[in-house]
Amino acid sequence: MPARDIISTHPDVRGSVSEALVRCIDECYACAQACTACADACLAEDMVQQLKQCTRLNLDGADVCAATGALASRRTGSNEPILGQMLQICAAVCCFLRASAPQPERRCPAQ
Amino acid sequence: MPARDIISTHPDVRGSVSEALVRCIDECYACAQACTACADACLAEDMVQQLKQCTRLNLDGADVCAATGALASRRTGSNEPILGQMLQICAAVCCFLRASAPQPERRCPAQ
Amino acid sequence: MPARDIISTHPDVRGSVSEALVRCIDECYACAQACTACADACLAEDMVQQLKQCTRLNLDGADVCAATGALASRRTGSNEPILGQMLQICAAVCCFLRASAPQPERRCPAQ
Amino acid sequence: MPARDIISTHPDVRGSVSEALVRCIDECYACAQACTACADACLAEDMVQQLKQCTRLNLDGADVCAATGALASRRTGSNEPILGQMLQICAAVCCFLRASAPQPERRCPAQ
Repeated sequence: MPARDIISTHPDVRGSVSEALVRCIDECYACAQACTACADACLAEDMVQQLKQCTRLNLDGADVCAATGALASRRTGSNEPILGQMLQICAAVCCFLRASAPQPERRCPAQ
Repeated sequence: MPARDIISTHPDVRGSVSEALVRCIDECYACAQACTACADACLAEDMVQQLKQCTRLNLDGADVCAATGALASRRTGSNEPILGQMLQICAAVCCFLRASAPQPERRCPAQ
Repeated sequence: MPARDIISTHPDVRGSVSEALVRCIDECYACAQACTACADACLAEDMVQQLKQCTRLNLDGADVCAATGALASRRTGSNEPILGQMLQICAAVCCFLRASAPQPERRCPAQ
Repeated sequence: MPARDIISTHPDVRGSVSEALVRCIDECYACAQACTACADACLAEDMVQQLKQCTRLNLDGADVCAATGALASRRTGSNEPILGQMLQICAAVCCFLRASAPQPERRCPAQ
C-alpha cells in the first residue's frame, strides 16, 4: 500500500494529506533501497578498490534515508525541527555520493 | 529510482533481473513504511489502549520488513537460506497483524 | 565484542583508537536500545494517552541513534561533516525527549 | 543506560527481569555494531576482492541483529514465535559468517 493511502487514514490527518510529505516519504524509502543496492553493486565490481568511498557513503546514505523515511511517516505529535535537519542531511549525503563517483560513466544509478 | 533499475545494473545480474525478487524488495520497503505509519496511527487513536498489541506488532513488522528488504537488495555473494527464512517471518508478522485488529472495520490499512 | 576491540582491528586504524569515537558509538547503540524500550514502556502505561509525544520522540530517537551508531562505526573513507550533524541531531532529540516527559517523576529512564 | 535498567521499569515487568532476555538484547545490539564495523573493515582491506562474501554477510548480519534487538526490547503485548525465529536467524548468520572467513588468521573479530 502506498504511503499516501496509509497517511491519509491517520486520525490527525483525516484525508488532508500533504503531497510534499508523501513524496518525501516515498523518496526516502526509495533512496534507502537504492543506496543499499548500490553499495552492494560497488562491492561486486572488479574495481571495488577504487569504489571504497562510494561504497561507504552509500551505506551511510541507506542508514540516514531509512531513518528519515520513518521519522517523516509519523504524524502523531510533532518533531518538525529534527525532520527538517534530517532531510538536509539526506540531501548532503546524496551530494557527497555524486562527488565520490570515480568517473561519470561509472556513476551509480542512485546518483 | 525503482529497485528494478538499480538491481539491473549490478555486475552479477547484467540485465537479467528476477521480477519476483524485485517485487519482493519493493513490497518489503512498502511494508516497512506501512507498518511504521500504522503504528503511529494506532498511537494517535482515542482507543490506543485497545490497540497496544497491534501497535507493537506494527513496530516489529517495520523492523523485520526493513531488514528483509535490505537483505533482498544484495546480490553480491549469496545468502538465500537466510533470506528465505526472513521472508517467511515477514509473512508471519503480517498474519499476526491481521489477527490483532480489534474489529474488521478498524483494521489498519497495512493489513 | 565491544566496539573498541572491533574498531582497533580496522586496517586504517591499526590500534590507534579514538576513545571519544568508541564511547560515542557505544552511546549511540545504547540510546537506540533505550529509546526502543522506552517507547514500548510508554505504550504499556495506563496513561499512554498523555505519553503520545514522548512515545513518538522515542521512536524517532531510536531511528536517529541507530543510524548515527552505524555511521560512526565506519572508518573506511570519510564522512565527518555528516557524522557531526547526525550527532547534533541525536543530542537535539534527547533534549526534546527530556522536555516531553509529563512530569519529572514519570520521566523515562532513557532521559 | 543498560538494557537491564530500562526493561526493569516496564509496567508489565515491574522489576522481574529475565536475565536471559536482557543478555540477548545486549548481544543483539553488540552484534549489530560488530557486523557493521566488520563489513567496513573488510572494505578497507587490500584483499577486499577475497572478502566480498564476508562483507555481504556482515551487512546482512547487522540488519538481522538490529531488528532482533529491537523486537526483543519490546515487552508490551507478545510476539514470542517471531522473536524465537529471529534469534535462530541471528545464530545462522553468525554461523555463515564464521564459515566465510578466507583463513582462520584473517577471521574477523565479530566471529
